[in-house]
Amino acid sequence: MVDERFQSRKCILKFLALVLFAFLLHVSTVEAAKIRRFKWEAKYEHKSPDCFKKLVITINGRSPGPTISAHQGDTIIVELKNSLLTENLAIHWHGIRQIGTPWSDGTEGVSQCPIMPGETFTYKFVVDRPGTYLYHAHYGMQRDSGIYGSIRVSLPDGESEPYAYDYDRSIILTDWYHKSFHDLATGLSSIPFVWVKEPQSLLIQGKGKFNCSLSLGTDVCNATNPECSPYGLIVIPGKTYRLRIGSLTSLSALSFQIEGHNMTVVEADGHNVEPFVVKNLFLYSGETYSVLITADQDPSRNYWITTNVVGRSPNTTDGLAILNYYPNHPKRSPPTPPPTGPSWNNTSLRVAQSLAIKARQGYIKTPPQTSDRMIVFLNTQNEINGIRRWSVNNVSFTHPHTPYLISVKHNLTQEFDQTPPPNGYDIVNYDIYKKPTNSNATSSNAIYRLDFNSTVDVILQNANTMVTDNSETHPWHLHGHDFWVLGYGDGKFDIYKDPKKYNLVNPIMKNTVPVHPYGWTALRFKADNPGVWAFHCHIESHFYMGMGVVFEEGIERVGVLPKSIMGCGAVKGGLPKP
Amino acid sequence: MVDERFQSRKCILKFLALVLFAFLLHVSTVEAAKIRRFKWEAKYEHKSPDCFKKLVITINGRSPGPTISAHQGDTIIVELKNSLLTENLAIHWHGIRQIGTPWSDGTEGVSQCPIMPGETFTYKFVVDRPGTYLYHAHYGMQRDSGIYGSIRVSLPDGESEPYAYDYDRSIILTDWYHKSFHDLATGLSSIPFVWVKEPQSLLIQGKGKFNCSLSLGTDVCNATNPECSPYGLIVIPGKTYRLRIGSLTSLSALSFQIEGHNMTVVEADGHNVEPFVVKNLFLYSGETYSVLITADQDPSRNYWITTNVVGRSPNTTDGLAILNYYPNHPKRSPPTPPPTGPSWNNTSLRVAQSLAIKARQGYIKTPPQTSDRMIVFLNTQNEINGIRRWSVNNVSFTHPHTPYLISVKHNLTQEFDQTPPPNGYDIVNYDIYKKPTNSNATSSNAIYRLDFNSTVDVILQNANTMVTDNSETHPWHLHGHDFWVLGYGDGKFDIYKDPKKYNLVNPIMKNTVPVHPYGWTALRFKADNPGVWAFHCHIESHFYMGMGVVFEEGIERVGVLPKSIMGCGAVKGGLPKP
Repeated sequence: MVDERFQSRKCILKFLALVLFAFLLHVSTVEAAKIRRFKWEAKYEHKSPDCFKKLVITINGRSPGPTISAHQGDTIIVELKNSLLTENLAIHWHGIRQIGTPWSDGTEGVSQCPIMPGETFTYKFVVDRPGTYLYHAHYGMQRDSGIYGSIRVSLPDGESEPYAYDYDRSIILTDWYHKSFHDLATGLSSIPFVWVKEPQSLLIQGKGKFNCSLSLGTDVCNATNPECSPYGLIVIPGKTYRLRIGSLTSLSALSFQIEGHNMTVVEADGHNVEPFVVKNLFLYSGETYSVLITADQDPSRNYWITTNVVGRSPNTTDGLAILNYYPNHPKRSPPTPPPTGPSWNNTSLRVAQSLAIKARQGYIKTPPQTSDRMIVFLNTQNEINGIRRWSVNNVSFTHPHTPYLISVKHNLTQEFDQTPPPNGYDIVNYDIYKKPTNSNATSSNAIYRLDFNSTVDVILQNANTMVTDNSETHPWHLHGHDFWVLGYGDGKFDIYKDPKKYNLVNPIMKNTVPVHPYGWTALRFKADNPGVWAFHCHIESHFYMGMGVVFEEGIERVGVLPKSIMGCGAVKGGLPKP
Repeated sequence: MVDERFQSRKCILKFLALVLFAFLLHVSTVEAAKIRRFKWEAKYEHKSPDCFKKLVITINGRSPGPTISAHQGDTIIVELKNSLLTENLAIHWHGIRQIGTPWSDGTEGVSQCPIMPGETFTYKFVVDRPGTYLYHAHYGMQRDSGIYGSIRVSLPDGESEPYAYDYDRSIILTDWYHKSFHDLATGLSSIPFVWVKEPQSLLIQGKGKFNCSLSLGTDVCNATNPECSPYGLIVIPGKTYRLRIGSLTSLSALSFQIEGHNMTVVEADGHNVEPFVVKNLFLYSGETYSVLITADQDPSRNYWITTNVVGRSPNTTDGLAILNYYPNHPKRSPPTPPPTGPSWNNTSLRVAQSLAIKARQGYIKTPPQTSDRMIVFLNTQNEINGIRRWSVNNVSFTHPHTPYLISVKHNLTQEFDQTPPPNGYDIVNYDIYKKPTNSNATSSNAIYRLDFNSTVDVILQNANTMVTDNSETHPWHLHGHDFWVLGYGDGKFDIYKDPKKYNLVNPIMKNTVPVHPYGWTALRFKADNPGVWAFHCHIESHFYMGMGVVFEEGIERVGVLPKSIMGCGAVKGGLPKP
């Protein structure tokens, strides 16, 4: 009895603290400074995000790292100290276009040399649009080590979204390997090829639950470790929440659901969506969505939040979190079994969601009605010198060691292959339903050079992998731009008929988009951001295996490059003397 | 019957091949070029040196890496390409004094910036003395990842050693952790402190045998993997072998023995030893010895070669190899149980070996009879800000990120602490048999500056660790020099009486020497090699935890530093403009 009263007093105090916190948050946004400075330190720590102990790269001791909260127009300054022992580092600001600051994109080999141990690198950029963005390592397969987080950009004070909500929350979904990314990457470039296989578990906001009985002893995996207690999202009955959900999986496409609660999708990759309601939200690596949920269910209990793998035969422990109706105990398990998503191989459901996403009325940015150039990207697998690779138009991308931004700007033509990569593939003869024959597969670090301010159409054409009757989903992410998603289709893209079906009225703009199995996705963007920009499959192993390209546009308009991005490859000692 | 005849024909062919090989080897030494160029590529590979699969850094696909064989006076050029994904690299040439080339010492933070992924760094140095030397990574705890090998320097043609042998063979002993060095290092700098514990197995020339029943499945550990079949040393009955043995253990002191064969010790760290015979040879990390063995036992069988941990309560699988009497099958197990070394805690046996090592008559380099400076180094443990550290005179060494060679030569005084570190400790009051109280422990990157050409005495004074009644053996390794080993003693060094007992007649010269538990070791060296040189405990975790110092001498005589060693810290973009 005494205990109970004590508990409820604790609860009231907690509630008051919550109210005070919300108030302070409000005050701080009102008094928002225009420059937001962060001091971050990246280092290895032992963490057990899914109860299994692993070396994790943390930021200021945390994984996911600190959330960056800012207002539209703010300048973000992150002083990132690399406190790893022998490893370099780079962090990409995913979804931030870096207009005027292409050197702050954080993409090793493209926009900068990696940050060496002991160094502090300063990223400085403007968050010029409201929305939900991400950050993560962009170097080798380092993202898999847990160095990632959320960027939440709010509207300026006084402005409001075209939808109402009481509170704003962010969560990131990831999948999680128990092996280090060094281990995974080594397997991928071995002969024979060692595939990374399915991740061990899914994490919701950095927390998962691996079945420890599958491993050797509590020293390695301890189910009672508080680090892997499920993430709890506290809600106050009756209130509406904007839930910003991002996926930074290494491999997996996900379905996300909240038991007993519908979700209204209102934002995708920073753009307002014509609202639609889902029970299951599909997310591909690199995508963000905002959904609205109202805590309108029986308030005497908690509800499960779950995420599970789709698109691949799942062999990964589902992610489980708790929607905690205040004042129930946050750890109290819901009385019902956790909801599971739709069956993993129901591709049509996922295509349907892709098709449902349109720009919101009143917030439509109409695309140019024609384009200046069309590039078709055939997505296939190849084998080059006995090593399994992914390729685009039968060319597998390799990273140079001098960042393109520097070598292009300063015309260091020796630093990468100057022959333009192919604009398409043999559309007439190539059978996308058959395993590739690989007779023409090559690897290259050549780049696509775009006319400044031109309108470019990109057709992502999916095909069969090197496994019979298999085609995978690839989420393609474009740096430095948003693109209009003009259409999706099944089978081989017809360059005469399919463009006529483009949605040129209210296409959504995004920075990451899936190409579905054996399907195509058509994008359009303006090459209006001077710099050099990666465009790649956001699956960590796929990009590592060559599934990406690089675009250059308006390099002559890029200002003086900061010295801090140099120090490797041909610019090891700074720029060569002319 | 047919099989047997076939076998013996195979054996004869093998023998002929062996003879041909020995002949070719002889021819090639006669025609020895003065410049020996090597192209090496370092990368991660999955290897199972003790049957347990681990990520290993290989050189040209091998661990141990290729043996460097050269003649006295040759110039060695190693073009080392770093093909690691995100990690930097540096390789130290252990025992090579680098006279005139201090920038080729390969010590990260001291002689160079680390080599970045994709870069090729060229080491160039002269092997000016015959003898047995080693190479290994010298960056963080990277040596533990398997990147190491042998350097064998022969006398010029026409000259011969003062001892006779028919064949020359090299083997390296190491201990082996199953965890990555990232994992071990992270534990060591954690709060609470996570000690690396004992290694899982001992490797002889890169091969060991872990008990796979202790791990999860043959995917992880496979006892039948040929990579972990025991190393076989083939001998021809009646012949005498010079066996060059080096230890590059991470933690362990070793005893080494060959069943049924005495070993005559003739060389230590490149210097001729007054021969003595042992059944067990003790080796500390960083030491090399040459022993002579004669294949004079029953030739109808093979014999075990074993190594086991001494000095620490062993919990490491012994190393096992086979002395293969030709023409027995190389994999045929000897019929007797493998010999074990003496009991691990018999310190007096080990001290006796230390005392037995003297310079060989006719090859004595007489030391200066007096010294210009004496420095006493108290070896203790401390705790600094909650982190367990090793320290020297209560100062725990920390690495700077600008290499000392550059910062000292170019007077970049901001790059390290300019206050000289202590020349000794409170000899009168400090109780070496008690746990340290740590009231004065600090960490620092200050260095010892020596007068050029002065004679320096160093007294390594051992003491109790932070565990009651515990003192450990530390093998100290000096870069850039050999030192005379003037004496060893028990307990606290007496600065009045003990110098009178120094061996100034025929002390051995070495580059690595143990200080025994609760004992002292006295060294003398000439500060005659312009450069900046590390002097540290060769136990990987101990140096990482601060057990080292740095000496500078004659910096003004160091020539123009090559640009290739720059690119980090204050010299990220090269030397600062004056």
